[in-house]
Amino acid sequence: MPQIRLKDVANILGLSNSTVSKALNDSFEISDETKRKVQHTARLLNYTPNQVAVNLRKKHTKTIGVIIPTMVHHFFSKIIDGIIERAEKDGYLVIILQSNESISLEKKQVNLLIDKRVDGILISLSNETNEFVHLKKILSRNIPLILFDKIEPSIACSKVKIDDFEAAYSSVVFLIKKGYKKIAHFRGDFNPKNSVDRFNGYKQALLDNNIDFDPSLVFLCDNNSDFEDGYSNAKKLISDKIKVDAIFAITDLIAIGAIKYLKEQQIKVPEEIAVFGFSNWFMSSVISPTLSTVDQPAYKMGKVSMEILLDEIRTLKENKTVTHKEITLPTKLVIRNSC
Amino acid sequence: MPQIRLKDVANILGLSNSTVSKALNDSFEISDETKRKVQHTARLLNYTPNQVAVNLRKKHTKTIGVIIPTMVHHFFSKIIDGIIERAEKDGYLVIILQSNESISLEKKQVNLLIDKRVDGILISLSNETNEFVHLKKILSRNIPLILFDKIEPSIACSKVKIDDFEAAYSSVVFLIKKGYKKIAHFRGDFNPKNSVDRFNGYKQALLDNNIDFDPSLVFLCDNNSDFEDGYSNAKKLISDKIKVDAIFAITDLIAIGAIKYLKEQQIKVPEEIAVFGFSNWFMSSVISPTLSTVDQPAYKMGKVSMEILLDEIRTLKENKTVTHKEITLPTKLVIRNSC
Repeated sequence: MPQIRLKDVANILGLSNSTVSKALNDSFEISDETKRKVQHTARLLNYTPNQVAVNLRKKHTKTIGVIIPTMVHHFFSKIIDGIIERAEKDGYLVIILQSNESISLEKKQVNLLIDKRVDGILISLSNETNEFVHLKKILSRNIPLILFDKIEPSIACSKVKIDDFEAAYSSVVFLIKKGYKKIAHFRGDFNPKNSVDRFNGYKQALLDNNIDFDPSLVFLCDNNSDFEDGYSNAKKLISDKIKVDAIFAITDLIAIGAIKYLKEQQIKVPEEIAVFGFSNWFMSSVISPTLSTVDQPAYKMGKVSMEILLDEIRTLKENKTVTHKEITLPTKLVIRNSC
Repeated sequence: MPQIRLKDVANILGLSNSTVSKALNDSFEISDETKRKVQHTARLLNYTPNQVAVNLRKKHTKTIGVIIPTMVHHFFSKIIDGIIERAEKDGYLVIILQSNESISLEKKQVNLLIDKRVDGILISLSNETNEFVHLKKILSRNIPLILFDKIEPSIACSKVKIDDFEAAYSSVVFLIKKGYKKIAHFRGDFNPKNSVDRFNGYKQALLDNNIDFDPSLVFLCDNNSDFEDGYSNAKKLISDKIKVDAIFAITDLIAIGAIKYLKEQQIKVPEEIAVFGFSNWFMSSVISPTLSTVDQPAYKMGKVSMEILLDEIRTLKENKTVTHKEITLPTKLVIRNSC
C-alpha cells in the first residue's frame, strides 16, 4: 500500500486539505461531527495524524503558553517575570492562563493552547490535578512541555522545582535546635506534591529529633492557601487552647495571617509563639516582627524553565532527540525576628 | 462593476481563499511578501477587507484577551480574578498578557490577540503608551475593546475606571484637615493618566486650602512604582533633610516601602511623619502601623469590565449597534493608624 497523504484523506471526504489538517489537530474551528468523520477515515486508511502534527509544529508561532494556579501569590508573579524576560530575549510572546486551582479549567486551557498552536507549554499544576491525560495529550502532539514548582513526577517531560521536603525539614530542625518543642504545622492541600513534601519534611524532622508527631497540631489551609487561612487557623489554635510554642506555615502569606491574629490577641511573636514561613515574599522583611522563612528562587525558576523550553523547541526544530532535564533549584533559610 | 468577492482576488493571484483571507487579516501564518501582494490586489479591485474581518468575526472562539502592565501589584491580580470569574460563567477562556509597562510589547501583544482571533480585548495601558494606532487597529477589526484603570479618553470604546483626581484630592484634604501642612507626594510616571490625575488631585487640594505647592516635595517613582521606589524616595527625603510632616504615596506598595525606611531610621509613623497610600492592598491592614489608604474596587473593576465586554460581543453578534459605556467606580478613604 502506498504512503497515504493528507490530500488522499481530504479527497475521499470531499474536504479541503486545510479542514482535514485542522480536524486532525482538533482545532476549535472544525465541528465535532467533521472531526469524528476525518479521524475515523484517517484511522481506516492508516494515515498517521502525528505526522501532520509534526509538520504543523514546524510552522512556529513564536508564542509560549503558561498555566499557573493563581497570580495573587507574589511567588508566581515573580516566576512570570522570569519567564517573560527570558522569552522576550528570543522574541517569544507569552500567553498566561490562570487555572484558579481547578483541574477542569486547566484541561480546557491546555486544549486552548494546543489549538492556538503555541510552540511550547509551561505548567505549574493546580491543587486539584490528580490525573494527567491532558498533559499526555501535549506530549503526544510533540509540543515541548515543562512542569515547574507544582510538578508530577510520572510525566515524561522536563521539570524545574525545589526540594520541598528538604527545605521544610531544615526549617523545622532549625526550630527544634532553637528549643521549640510543640511545633504546629499549617499545611496545604492533600493533593499537590509540594504540599505533601513539606508536610513530610515537617514530620520527619520531628521524628528524627525524638519528638512525637501529634496530628492535632496539624491544621489544613483549604482556602487556596490564602492569608485568611493563616488567620483562621491561628484563631482555631488559640480558641481550642492548643498549647504550641511555634508554627511552621506552608507559605509566608499564611504565616503573616497567623501573625496578624496573634498580634490582635496580644500574643507575643516570637516570645510566646514563634512563626516560620515559606517562600521569602518581599513583605516578609517589612512586617513586624520580620518573618523567618525559606527563600525560594521564583524569578530564577521562571528563567530556567523558559531556558529549557527554548532549548527543547530548538532541538525539536532540528529534528534531534530531546533529553529531558530535572532541575532542583537550591533554597536557603532566611532567619529573621519571628523565631 | 460587479461586487468583487474574496474568491476573485484569490483566482487572480492563484492563491487559495483561505490564504487570501488570512493575508487580509494580517495572519502570522502568511509571509509579508504574500500579504503585500494580496493587499495590493484587493485595493486595486476595490475589494473591502473589512467585510472579511466582519465575516471572520462571526466565527466565535470563546476566548478573551487581557493585557495588563504587571502582575506583581496585587491590584491587577484581583482585577484578573474578577475578569476570569465572570468570563467562566459564560464559558469564555481568558488569555492574559503582561506588557511590563512597555508600549512595544503591548503592540506586539495586540497583534497576537488579533491573530489568535479572540472575541474581545481588555487592556490596562502601559505607562509608556502615548500613541494609540494599535488600539485603533482593534476597533477597525470590529473587535470589542474595553479599557480599564489605565485608560486613554480619546479612544472610542467603553471604559471602566475610578476618579483618580477626586480620590487623591480627598486623601490630601483629609491630611490637611488632620493638621498636616508639609505634605510630600511620591508620584508615578509622567505619562499615564491615573498618575497625572493623582498628582493633580494632590496639587489642587493644597491650593484649595491655601498651602503653596512646593515642587521640591514631589518625588518621582520611576522604577515601575515598586516597593523600592518608596524606600529610596524616603531615603532621599531624609538624607536631604527635607522637612515634611506627611507623605501621600501613589500606591500602597510605595507607602509601605517608605514606612520601612522610616522605621529603620527610628522615625515614628505617624508621630513624626504620617503616610497615606492608595489602593487598599490587603497587606495595608497587616503592616505596622496599619496604613491609611484609598480603597479601589479591583475585583469589581474586573467583573464590570468583563460584563460590558460580553455585552458588546453579544450585541455585535446580533448585528446591532454597540453603545459605549464609561463607568466610574466609587472609591472610599480607609483611615487607619499611619496618620
